[in-house]
Amino acid sequence: MDTNDPMAYDIFDLNCPSRAVFDRLGERWTGLVLLALKPGTLRFSELRRQVQGITQKMLTQTLRGLERDGMVSRTVYPTVPVTVEYTLTPLGHSLSAAVDVLRAWAIEHIDEIDAARAEYEQAG
Amino acid sequence: MDTNDPMAYDIFDLNCPSRAVFDRLGERWTGLVLLALKPGTLRFSELRRQVQGITQKMLTQTLRGLERDGMVSRTVYPTVPVTVEYTLTPLGHSLSAAVDVLRAWAIEHIDEIDAARAEYEQAG
Repeated sequence: MDTNDPMAYDIFDLNCPSRAVFDRLGERWTGLVLLALKPGTLRFSELRRQVQGITQKMLTQTLRGLERDGMVSRTVYPTVPVTVEYTLTPLGHSLSAAVDVLRAWAIEHIDEIDAARAEYEQAG
Repeated sequence: MDTNDPMAYDIFDLNCPSRAVFDRLGERWTGLVLLALKPGTLRFSELRRQVQGITQKMLTQTLRGLERDGMVSRTVYPTVPVTVEYTLTPLGHSLSAAVDVLRAWAIEHIDEIDAARAEYEQAG
């Protein structure tokens, strides 16, 4: 594969590296955590309050994945108890901007989707 | 809630309609199916071949969700056996364009993510 040619990548191909990245973006909580960190650094407990419905386990797992992929940096302060803060890296900020396009899309089209659902149920 | 004010929507709020739409966009196969239908109409079997790794059950479920939300229209031709075709609606095309921003992002940043992963494993 010629990795200098964006057309050489095939997001549908299970063996293409772009598919792995795209799948990560599509994980259940990734988008919401990226959006939550967009305005600035948050502690674990603040993030958990912000992203309603996320469990401690899922938040830990999502943050670890984002840290591993270079989207989020983690800073530990030796307080008692320990304070852990999470911040978007430049790469994470860039992705978070792309996810924000989806958030804006969702908000802009809620009425159309609601209307489609009502029609579908009626036709059902 | 003032639904004319986009700021009134809170994607983090489990009770906000924007959260339901955003969660649907984040479902496992939604993005790939939208991208697969972007170039044009496909039959079920063609879609299944295109979106590698999807099962018949997951494709059926994803298409039903997209149809219900007004993103995809379904046409049945009375051949033997029956032919079923799926096409993006204008709403689906609009969403698919937003998802394409994520695909482009993924392809553009693969090298940075790979480098971050290698560093993380080494530090681990």
